Amino acid sequence: MPDTPAFQDLYPDEWSYCYGCGRLNDKGLHVRSFWDGEETVAVLRPRAEHMALPGIVYGGYIASAIDCHSTGTAAGAAQRAAGKGLDQGPLPRFLTASLKVDYLKPTPLGVDLELRSRVVEVKGRKVVVATELYAAGEVRVRGEAVLVQVPDDFKPQV
Amino acid sequence: MPDTPAFQDLYPDEWSYCYGCGRLNDKGLHVRSFWDGEETVAVLRPRAEHMALPGIVYGGYIASAIDCHSTGTAAGAAQRAAGKGLDQGPLPRFLTASLKVDYLKPTPLGVDLELRSRVVEVKGRKVVVATELYAAGEVRVRGEAVLVQVPDDFKPQV
Repeated sequence: MPDTPAFQDLYPDEWSYCYGCGRLNDKGLHVRSFWDGEETVAVLRPRAEHMALPGIVYGGYIASAIDCHSTGTAAGAAQRAAGKGLDQGPLPRFLTASLKVDYLKPTPLGVDLELRSRVVEVKGRKVVVATELYAAGEVRVRGEAVLVQVPDDFKPQV
Repeated sequence: MPDTPAFQDLYPDEWSYCYGCGRLNDKGLHVRSFWDGEETVAVLRPRAEHMALPGIVYGGYIASAIDCHSTGTAAGAAQRAAGKGLDQGPLPRFLTASLKVDYLKPTPLGVDLELRSRVVEVKGRKVVVATELYAAGEVRVRGEAVLVQVPDDFKPQV
């Protein structure tokens, strides 16, 4: 992965406890997402227990990875759309309004999963992100997520 | 919950390691689903670490719960469609072909989540399941899943 902060490293502390991607959630999955040109990328290795049937990655783990990579991508896209670099202040935080996942073929356990996303739309506080998940050289899963920026007056219940 | 086996208790052992619902996965979420008339129901309590923002349940956990409750519901529906009771042999095992989740409003952490599903369609080896997730008396999330029965010649890689 690039030697730069991930989008998720740039969330304010109080919004960094997400099970999927929060750097301050010590039991979580720690999804970390980066720009790669116009796409974003995240690489993940599921743990042995993240199986559906033996040898196959659990679909809920995949949905989780797509979810958090999409919210991260939305944050990066919103920052870029505002004309700001990743070094210019904390990233905005998005939540998922809807998530669609198509499992095209089984995803093998025991190898890295690469998620690649493109920003389909940035419109006001809404971002749409399309993702492909690769494992062992093949597209296994496609996802599309609609993300909405957390309201400015939202108070995390820490 | 009813004093009867859950659908997931009736999967063959080698297909009972799913992170979301496998009774033999000791690190998993242990989703357990039951008939309630024509609907199916599962009740779950997320752990403290299963947060998105503080106080709100992680969307990936919710997607996982809907995923496994839907595969369980598909298994129950297929058994019922075949004219068999839950006591007549192991349940067939389904995998998710697609999953759509709409997060209508935040789901509060620290209370039970109740998933209620109805079987939209049983057609050959395909089942479609629609789910509503309730927390603190309100529908928070809607899901729809398309499930496909695992091929008879599928060999789990135990």
